[in-house]
Amino acid sequence: MTSTFSSLRINSDRMLDSFTQVSVFGSTPEGGVNRPSFSEAHLQARKWFREQIESAGFEFRTDGAGNHSAVIASHELAKQSPTLIIGSHLDSVPNGGKYDGGLGVVAAFEVLKIIQENRIKLKVNVEAMDFTDEEGTLVGLLGGAAISGHLHQKDLDNPRGGRENLVEGMKRAGLSDESMLSAKRDPKTLAGYLELHIEQGKRLEKSKINIGIVSAIVGIASYRLSFLGKANHAGTTTMEDRLDASLGASSFTLKARELVMGRYKNSVVNVGKMEFAPGAFNIVPAQVDLSLEFRSATQDEFDKLEIALIELAKNEAKNFGLELKIEFLGKHSPSPMSDKAQTAFASACDELGLTNTSLTSGAGHDAQSLADLCPVGMIFVPSVDGISHSPKEFTEWEDCVNGANVLLHAVLKLGID
Amino acid sequence: MTSTFSSLRINSDRMLDSFTQVSVFGSTPEGGVNRPSFSEAHLQARKWFREQIESAGFEFRTDGAGNHSAVIASHELAKQSPTLIIGSHLDSVPNGGKYDGGLGVVAAFEVLKIIQENRIKLKVNVEAMDFTDEEGTLVGLLGGAAISGHLHQKDLDNPRGGRENLVEGMKRAGLSDESMLSAKRDPKTLAGYLELHIEQGKRLEKSKINIGIVSAIVGIASYRLSFLGKANHAGTTTMEDRLDASLGASSFTLKARELVMGRYKNSVVNVGKMEFAPGAFNIVPAQVDLSLEFRSATQDEFDKLEIALIELAKNEAKNFGLELKIEFLGKHSPSPMSDKAQTAFASACDELGLTNTSLTSGAGHDAQSLADLCPVGMIFVPSVDGISHSPKEFTEWEDCVNGANVLLHAVLKLGID
Repeated sequence: MTSTFSSLRINSDRMLDSFTQVSVFGSTPEGGVNRPSFSEAHLQARKWFREQIESAGFEFRTDGAGNHSAVIASHELAKQSPTLIIGSHLDSVPNGGKYDGGLGVVAAFEVLKIIQENRIKLKVNVEAMDFTDEEGTLVGLLGGAAISGHLHQKDLDNPRGGRENLVEGMKRAGLSDESMLSAKRDPKTLAGYLELHIEQGKRLEKSKINIGIVSAIVGIASYRLSFLGKANHAGTTTMEDRLDASLGASSFTLKARELVMGRYKNSVVNVGKMEFAPGAFNIVPAQVDLSLEFRSATQDEFDKLEIALIELAKNEAKNFGLELKIEFLGKHSPSPMSDKAQTAFASACDELGLTNTSLTSGAGHDAQSLADLCPVGMIFVPSVDGISHSPKEFTEWEDCVNGANVLLHAVLKLGID
Repeated sequence: MTSTFSSLRINSDRMLDSFTQVSVFGSTPEGGVNRPSFSEAHLQARKWFREQIESAGFEFRTDGAGNHSAVIASHELAKQSPTLIIGSHLDSVPNGGKYDGGLGVVAAFEVLKIIQENRIKLKVNVEAMDFTDEEGTLVGLLGGAAISGHLHQKDLDNPRGGRENLVEGMKRAGLSDESMLSAKRDPKTLAGYLELHIEQGKRLEKSKINIGIVSAIVGIASYRLSFLGKANHAGTTTMEDRLDASLGASSFTLKARELVMGRYKNSVVNVGKMEFAPGAFNIVPAQVDLSLEFRSATQDEFDKLEIALIELAKNEAKNFGLELKIEFLGKHSPSPMSDKAQTAFASACDELGLTNTSLTSGAGHDAQSLADLCPVGMIFVPSVDGISHSPKEFTEWEDCVNGANVLLHAVLKLGID
């Protein structure tokens, strides 16, 4: 970066104005937003972004996945320059908060405005993007998967939000299976992807650090474990004679936590649900289906933890005389962020006088889809009490501005000749 | 008992014929019966019993609760003699077995036939009864509760099978709330109640003993325990920061079992169901509602176990930083069987050369409603593999005959001058 731009800062008031405007769409009485993918409120927010792009004089770009972006072209031969994407998403979880996604989009758009009004010459095109269905009301990380070529027909056939909802949602947005699958971009045209997001955890707040530079997005795997015993009369069957499925499931739940806390420090595990069958007060449970999810920051720990948890489930079933049925539901490997992006963020923080630390992202983001195509990076800003996916989600505006400035200077470091 | 009758035996072939006939109603391909209260199959079985009573020349009696019985009058001034009721029930659980209830009804009816054809003079009236809705498709132990005056309007307003099903069922049987509540009998008119039933457990089979003489029907209590934590992102929330409701529920489940097996030998405990909220793979469970049931044979142990389990739940909630909500759902105290009835059964076994043992009933029976009104007693016969409430329920016919003979001789001991 030339010293010419080192004193540049984003326009805090203008970005706040944008953020306030977009937060109106789907706003809830509790102070959050309710903008599930392709809901009326989400479509309004998308329309607003398109109008903002056009009225600010940027090129508007959309693709078959419904990703929307403002483009500022490289000063070099535009058609041949690779593109640095920055951005986040305007959809929310049902009854969510306004910072998760919304902040990253308005910050990216503000960065483009700074580049535009300062007539900064870049060797890359910069594209400020609103990604489609990051939160997964329909599919989850949909826009990122579509761009990176990781989206397949089977993902659209059996989406987590239900096929009917997906079809109706795509229809409202003028999209289709065919358009979705056509949105893949050639990796050679991509210079990288950078995103600003709230932390969704308490680590920055607790340590009073300004910026978290993401080292990796954790890998995530889910299984359904079924502990199988025998239904019996809960009055006439002695305790010794029971094959009680609840015992294997309960013991697994407690020991899985101990295992992770003791030996897998860069991982987390969750038993989010158990379903009992037949599920009556007076019948010994014959079957407990347990919803298991675990996440790890490194591939090595991810692989070892997966083996250890399955082994634990087998042992706990055996200890209580139960059978075990293991159903693998899916996984994403850990996605390390690029060194180049992390270095650019750290250098930007230093120049801006902002404290920073390296941390992992426990949540999934579109960056993970793009991580094997081009250099990707993310930064987090503190989130009060670590709350997210809730109307109570809140980040101090000063922290939002800090994040946007770090994003701006990282773009300049990566984008200027 | 006079020696005149000591060589009397029930007519095995005739009883088998009755049992075979009644087992046709609601018979299932797996060899069981599906006769929920007041279902078409149950109404057919009830009609069959009435016809059998009338064609055999007994007085047919019914009451406002729909209990059906054959009556053989005392040779004394019939109107003033108290009545010894014997019997069981013709309803079954959905997709149940044919021995649970059906055996006790046909055995009681056969006992009456033996008394009739041998012109045995009794100081009591004997009534062979089919009790209404013992299994609880609608209310549970309904006929017994109605006779004993333990049935109240609130039981009919909010029955376990749903009010609508109860109203429809009563209508099909020509009954109503008013008739149900009018079925109470004056305890002074009751000489006692005796029932033959299958064990629904493996104790007799394991010990190769012919007859179990029930010392008490266990007390039963149920609670809903809600462990309350905090919903959080299962990826971004550290293990240390979680308030995971599953941990309290799981730990309680394991320790409740240890507690009962270690210190409450005459009790059992069951966690038949847990319900998780919000119940997603990727959200730390905020609430687990646990269905707790426990049973004890003695009042002292029942009371102590109740206190110990509630204390345990509080401690486990506290250990994991959770709140606990305790909802009491109901209980029946343990019902000791009368010494007089137990002595009569034991003496009958000795005369018949049948081995016998004292045991508790882990399941509820109509006898428990009548236990505080008149002397009540129950005997069990072995049940293969302890199976009940299943089409696989099976008892050797020889054991059924043994039970009917013990019932006959106990009736003679209690009923002859």
